[in-house]
Amino acid sequence: MMRFETLARIAGLADTLPSADEEARAAAARRQDSLTKPPGSLGRLEEIALFMAAWQGTERPRIARAQALVFAGNHGICAQGVNPFPQEVTAQMVANFAAGGAAINQLCRVNGAELSVIALDLDRPTADFTAGPAMTEAETLDAMNRGAAAVDPQADILTLGEMGIGNSTISAALCAALFGGEVAEWVGRGTGSDDAGLRRKADAIARGLARHPDRPPLETLAALGGREQAAICGAVLAAREARIPVILDGFICTAAVAPLFAADPRLLDHCLVGHVSREPGHAKLLSAMGKTAILDLDMRLGEGTGAALALGIVRAALACHDGMATFADAGISGP
Amino acid sequence: MMRFETLARIAGLADTLPSADEEARAAAARRQDSLTKPPGSLGRLEEIALFMAAWQGTERPRIARAQALVFAGNHGICAQGVNPFPQEVTAQMVANFAAGGAAINQLCRVNGAELSVIALDLDRPTADFTAGPAMTEAETLDAMNRGAAAVDPQADILTLGEMGIGNSTISAALCAALFGGEVAEWVGRGTGSDDAGLRRKADAIARGLARHPDRPPLETLAALGGREQAAICGAVLAAREARIPVILDGFICTAAVAPLFAADPRLLDHCLVGHVSREPGHAKLLSAMGKTAILDLDMRLGEGTGAALALGIVRAALACHDGMATFADAGISGP
Repeated sequence: MMRFETLARIAGLADTLPSADEEARAAAARRQDSLTKPPGSLGRLEEIALFMAAWQGTERPRIARAQALVFAGNHGICAQGVNPFPQEVTAQMVANFAAGGAAINQLCRVNGAELSVIALDLDRPTADFTAGPAMTEAETLDAMNRGAAAVDPQADILTLGEMGIGNSTISAALCAALFGGEVAEWVGRGTGSDDAGLRRKADAIARGLARHPDRPPLETLAALGGREQAAICGAVLAAREARIPVILDGFICTAAVAPLFAADPRLLDHCLVGHVSREPGHAKLLSAMGKTAILDLDMRLGEGTGAALALGIVRAALACHDGMATFADAGISGP
Repeated sequence: MMRFETLARIAGLADTLPSADEEARAAAARRQDSLTKPPGSLGRLEEIALFMAAWQGTERPRIARAQALVFAGNHGICAQGVNPFPQEVTAQMVANFAAGGAAINQLCRVNGAELSVIALDLDRPTADFTAGPAMTEAETLDAMNRGAAAVDPQADILTLGEMGIGNSTISAALCAALFGGEVAEWVGRGTGSDDAGLRRKADAIARGLARHPDRPPLETLAALGGREQAAICGAVLAAREARIPVILDGFICTAAVAPLFAADPRLLDHCLVGHVSREPGHAKLLSAMGKTAILDLDMRLGEGTGAALALGIVRAALACHDGMATFADAGISGP
């Protein structure tokens, strides 16, 4: 099992972790071109089938076992009044996940994913990053290792998500630190901030950035991020080690792995993005990372809902790839 | 059962067919606002749940029975060299549907829709519209009635699609006749036309428009359209009579019902659009009709594939609407 012992070595993993199987991708592309449809006419579904082939290492990828992981954390930055909800809502929503009452439960059920929710020290929020680093290196590594340990190495695909009051603020802070630009362009209303709340978020982020300037990407994660985000990084890397394709969720989940992208973009080659959030920083972040989301449905809930929803599209893509007849089988005339 | 006896009376159906149940929509909206998520955070999924509530006439809409209909037709306009494939491919693809080998078969299976394919006189193509009307009024009404008769009045939702070599040409012709604009803006590569093929399509359409100017919308359908498109109109109206919500597919399917929109936009109030096609006329057509597609996946296959794929999103929307806990149930704190 993957264990992380120092943040300094994460970037180098891009040279040692598995890469895409280009032979399997080419075989899948040949199969796509033989199927009874104009070449390319299934668009993104064809790209997804090839992506899955490349990461599963087989011409005919399958999803027998889909795992959905949701990581939850609490955040010291809430002391700055960045969120209208109290932090206890994080634990209440974790209980709601356990009881099956949240959106992610319904979406995992309809799209056939097995959901596990991992609450990370909810009674011990990270530190307020306007006063000091959110996490020590040891805390960051611990969360990464817990994320990695949660990955089922037998899964055929992994969807990721998060829950944590205050984590749209830390996500905007991470993006601004890693990619630059005006803080205001990365900040959105999250669970429902009003204009004054938005100003408090931007102000807290500006103070955090001033306090923790110019760190390497993984140290930026420690200084500004959250346990649920470090756990997502750990899960993404453990999935890569097991050649499991990943579907990321919205703004907070994508911001969580932005430090990996900044460390080495190849670390996210096995990741799709399920949807583009209404949270305004997400489209900007995806553009910076060169990723195109599968869905655009004006959602901004988190919990991994956009990723679990996109799993249905990935299943559909593989059903076409695997189940369609070829032109030769069906005896259909060419142009 | 709905029967059409004259094209002149179609527009007036908007005054007599059922309309949306606004009480059910309001009840569904109240339920959405009570569920454990920030209000509005499921975006389009919430809109879809309300739409389904309004058309099924119940606060908690369900999909126990989903019907997928695909209509196939052949087209005299193929004599003008508008398509690189021979017309026999239409019948060959109908056989492929029957054998379960097409993309639409896989997508209906994964999203739980029962597929019926109705081949409309494939050995008797419509007339070449550069020489005369594609269909007589009697032929148009016959196709509409066959479309209406195919609708299962017990279905909870209906997805529509089509197959017909040459029908991207007739769709562009219908759009140009009904909405105006340059012919070239409505014409795309369809199953794979090269530049010379594109010019032949645009030229044939220009001659068709010159031959059949300024007709009422349903007579435009007869003059320029196809049997599969008239059947789609009939199915859409029969679904409306039974209060069955409809998911339209891409360019050709949406162009099929454009005459209904032009006759009275209310006739399409019960219709969602499953996806926006890569065929360039589709985005322009959706804009003209004030509809926003659910998916944008660069697809351009037809067969109802975009509609069947979007059915999965509609199912997910209803799963959230029906299965989520309320704030009161889950004991979650407010802002």
